[in-house]
Amino acid sequence: MRTAFYISDGTAITAEVFGHALLSLFPIQFIHQTIPFVETPEKAVKIVQRISESFQDPSERPLVFYTIVNPEIREIIAASPGINYNFLDQFVAPLEKILGVPSKPEKHRTHSIHEKTYDNRIEAVNFALTNDDGANFKDYASADIILVGVSRSGKTPTSLYLALQYGIRAANYPFTEEDMGDVLKLPAALKAYKQKLFGLTISAERLHQIRSERRANSRYASMKQCRMEIREVENLYRKEKIPFLNSTHYSVEEISAKILAETGLERRRY
Amino acid sequence: MRTAFYISDGTAITAEVFGHALLSLFPIQFIHQTIPFVETPEKAVKIVQRISESFQDPSERPLVFYTIVNPEIREIIAASPGINYNFLDQFVAPLEKILGVPSKPEKHRTHSIHEKTYDNRIEAVNFALTNDDGANFKDYASADIILVGVSRSGKTPTSLYLALQYGIRAANYPFTEEDMGDVLKLPAALKAYKQKLFGLTISAERLHQIRSERRANSRYASMKQCRMEIREVENLYRKEKIPFLNSTHYSVEEISAKILAETGLERRRY
Repeated sequence: MRTAFYISDGTAITAEVFGHALLSLFPIQFIHQTIPFVETPEKAVKIVQRISESFQDPSERPLVFYTIVNPEIREIIAASPGINYNFLDQFVAPLEKILGVPSKPEKHRTHSIHEKTYDNRIEAVNFALTNDDGANFKDYASADIILVGVSRSGKTPTSLYLALQYGIRAANYPFTEEDMGDVLKLPAALKAYKQKLFGLTISAERLHQIRSERRANSRYASMKQCRMEIREVENLYRKEKIPFLNSTHYSVEEISAKILAETGLERRRY
Repeated sequence: MRTAFYISDGTAITAEVFGHALLSLFPIQFIHQTIPFVETPEKAVKIVQRISESFQDPSERPLVFYTIVNPEIREIIAASPGINYNFLDQFVAPLEKILGVPSKPEKHRTHSIHEKTYDNRIEAVNFALTNDDGANFKDYASADIILVGVSRSGKTPTSLYLALQYGIRAANYPFTEEDMGDVLKLPAALKAYKQKLFGLTISAERLHQIRSERRANSRYASMKQCRMEIREVENLYRKEKIPFLNSTHYSVEEISAKILAETGLERRRY
């Protein structure tokens, strides 16, 4: 199998994200090797050695995707026996022309600490944790968004992703049996913040499967219970005009991007 | 100020990450606009309209960074009055040649649900939450890594990032006053898992600042206390030969990438 290397003098996140996007266009399996923080020529020389040793058959020359700011280190990697792609380079010259200024590469600029925005993210993570799973209502006034839905519909991972990735303060509240009574009504704690609510729903089959992994053969995991809970929350979303989405076939990244697109919430990251 | 648009028929994460990396090379401020899930020609036409309306002065033509799989939608965006960059395109033809197969673009392939790896990530998030802040020792046997450090040295956000981004099961344990006694010793609960421990440390000044935001003028936040705690943990790391890093100047992304590079832990994401 061919190897794909992702190499950087920073985190290598850019090389990884872009390289994966590119390779996902091909119906081929690769061995993925990420090598971040190649910060010295000595280390770069060792990496080139590693690239050389990663193949014998020339038809399996590895792909080497890199974003390296330091010119000396970049040249060492660029001379590797792999098939080398400097991702940023070919966009830089045309952009310099358009923007009318030379580029000023600073190492680690993309995924490093950016003053205030960084604190925002850590605060948002703490906020998500303090306000996870309906543990706490008193911070709802300072929430950017309150995710609601039945247990195991994706609220917690989404809250954390919104916090870590975008610095958004997301609380989440699970509708429980007590909330359901005869008909699910909007709990009093949420009423005052109706404009911040965003609902998640999920297919009953998928919910049954997820809950069964946690508590097999319980009433909680039964198809009947899952169907009932989902019917109730979806009715509530429609009745109260709470925007919602079905998370069944979406990743946390997709759910988060859809929520941002739909609500117009501003990310605090940049 | 010039606008940079990041447009995709998927999450737009690739366009965003790559576009930011590119623009971070320039000493210029931009207005950032991310537009994910442009899945219909109608929507694409509206976006082009929005691009047109985003500038008057031709010297401020917006940058339009896009990764769009659907050819019809791609052509609409490619004809926008902005300065359009199709990020993936120019790498695809050379890769097709090298790999010897045509590309087979499937919409949303990069940041969507990938079978088993996705469940791994959600499980890892649940693991991080259950084993956050020393709340629980009984799962340490199934942890991939146990982050240790004083309160507020970055353990929780790092654990969550490792989980969400890489599917790694990270527990974390805060050294407390009780652990410190006369000299900080490795708590019994951690001894059996010494090979899984990874230490974080931080400068006393930064710790003092972070703690002061939470409990101003407390003993907990005092410089004296911060200095003492950090001296103790760093001594412990050295004595017990626990690998550690100083998180003061690093983002969660950098800390996580450094931990992976140093421990050789395998990501479960791909």
